[in-house]
Amino acid sequence: MKKLINDPATVVTDALVGVEAAHPDLRVDHEHKVVYRADAPVRGKVGLISGGGSGHEPLHGGFVGLGMLDAACPGEVFTSPTPDQMLNATTTVDSGAGVLHIVKNYTGDVMNFEMAAEMAAEAGAKVESVVTNDDVAVEDSTYTAGRRGVGVTVLVEKICGAGAETGRDLAAVAALGRKVNAWGRSMGMALTSCTVPAAGKPTFELTETEMEIGIGIHGEPGRYREPLGPAAAVAERLVDPIVQDLPYRAGDAVLAFVNGMGGTPLVELYVVFAEVKRILDGHGIAIARSLVGPYITSLEMAGCSITLLKLDDELTTLWDAPVKTPALRWGV
Amino acid sequence: MKKLINDPATVVTDALVGVEAAHPDLRVDHEHKVVYRADAPVRGKVGLISGGGSGHEPLHGGFVGLGMLDAACPGEVFTSPTPDQMLNATTTVDSGAGVLHIVKNYTGDVMNFEMAAEMAAEAGAKVESVVTNDDVAVEDSTYTAGRRGVGVTVLVEKICGAGAETGRDLAAVAALGRKVNAWGRSMGMALTSCTVPAAGKPTFELTETEMEIGIGIHGEPGRYREPLGPAAAVAERLVDPIVQDLPYRAGDAVLAFVNGMGGTPLVELYVVFAEVKRILDGHGIAIARSLVGPYITSLEMAGCSITLLKLDDELTTLWDAPVKTPALRWGV
Repeated sequence: MKKLINDPATVVTDALVGVEAAHPDLRVDHEHKVVYRADAPVRGKVGLISGGGSGHEPLHGGFVGLGMLDAACPGEVFTSPTPDQMLNATTTVDSGAGVLHIVKNYTGDVMNFEMAAEMAAEAGAKVESVVTNDDVAVEDSTYTAGRRGVGVTVLVEKICGAGAETGRDLAAVAALGRKVNAWGRSMGMALTSCTVPAAGKPTFELTETEMEIGIGIHGEPGRYREPLGPAAAVAERLVDPIVQDLPYRAGDAVLAFVNGMGGTPLVELYVVFAEVKRILDGHGIAIARSLVGPYITSLEMAGCSITLLKLDDELTTLWDAPVKTPALRWGV
Repeated sequence: MKKLINDPATVVTDALVGVEAAHPDLRVDHEHKVVYRADAPVRGKVGLISGGGSGHEPLHGGFVGLGMLDAACPGEVFTSPTPDQMLNATTTVDSGAGVLHIVKNYTGDVMNFEMAAEMAAEAGAKVESVVTNDDVAVEDSTYTAGRRGVGVTVLVEKICGAGAETGRDLAAVAALGRKVNAWGRSMGMALTSCTVPAAGKPTFELTETEMEIGIGIHGEPGRYREPLGPAAAVAERLVDPIVQDLPYRAGDAVLAFVNGMGGTPLVELYVVFAEVKRILDGHGIAIARSLVGPYITSLEMAGCSITLLKLDDELTTLWDAPVKTPALRWGV
């Protein structure tokens, strides 16, 4: 295992020291392991929190800031954060306008966020939850009942963050999150495995000539393995099931998000983006907005995922609204 | 070789199709392989161009846009672009205010940019060049006489871009670039090699227990190999030679840039950033600005580089000025 770490046991706590040192707009509660907007709670604004296992950076800590999350709860690598972390985050960011939990559909995350929401409600907070489940690859998976929550989570965090910033109430921000989840679909693939520091060996094995289509962000099995093909074929393997699932139709405008799993160079993601454009052109689907880069990763896994989000004027305006986080920033 | 490409021979041209599809603010000249600001030439503004081998993305194409470069010339992977590309870029972005070439110190890049500058001058353009050579690791290297140009190039492009945007003339923008290069120092390391698509096999070999300190961004040999150590030791190996070289002194404020080589997860870069902060605290050097992420990469190489730039009010103001490029964006 070759990693730039001090100790497999302290990767997350060590990284949080770095996050705090690098980003003066953020504040880190090292005891509870929560990353906050330095100005939380923001008066009158619905608070947004998310969280999940570490190893998917910049998700979620890199999306904390104006126009996006108020707090992120990182668990150990590929391990759910605890209800205690989530409860602390919830009560700290609650200005009285309520708090939205944005939860990827993994059993541990869902269960722990539910417990935190109940405890926060007992303490008097209004809490709503949006569970993302955009991965069309498989219906049930290693850590999930139903579909897994993946790339659309980034878009929910951005768009709900903009909605909250412009004064929408808790029910409206939650409805917005459910709309984004309903209008978005994703699928991923891997060329290589990754190594969880505490495990010290690769999560799974792929031979030198294989790829796995439909992989999960923790290396959960996908739909099938097949011989490594060209980027054009890979893009078709991912885009076709996505387009058919919603279904997206000719005349739709979408946000096209080509995400790197961590170990794939940006130049390759642009090769994939060109193929996604070609395929969508063939369906008469226009790319109105795009995002290309490693935003929801699986440590150093090589591979990519593709997320499409159908856009209307409301979602486009909220996507374009100002955001100031370590990983997504514009307009401010 | 496991890569998301169609053909090793078309990686760069295929990626440029993706760049154009993803970024409506950019325009791609596919014949000459140049990425432009869509609004180039910008009236009255000094034009900024850079370029170099591909495989270091987002450098340079990801830094084209308002407040940074007017054009970028990508060569084949790890191969200098041609004088013809650079000449086309120069004449296209020249509004009459002249053009600055930002060149990393590699023999091929320097020679080709010199030829392009001469041809552009013959055609009536005013051209100045800034050559970056911030890598303290070695004095001469595989493709370089003198020191290599690495991470400071990103900072030169940002700060010169801001200077040009605020109306400085060609001599002033060039002087600014030389100041940033003079005040910045870098050093890198690798845990793994990378594979150039056209070569099909790793550029070099490192055993499972070794790391290379002082590596170049094309895998050029560094200062030494040694057993893989903890992040704290790696950070010391890189920061100590940087701090001693300028030298940086107690009381200095710096921009601290922890760069990922491509295959290293962001969570590890934050672990390294925490160590950089600890070491600089020990020297009484304050981190006034920071940048953490994969900005000048070596395909999928695992490793990192560290760049420090001494800041004064002028450089800080220009660093903070608005920028709108695919890879660096704020204030707009």
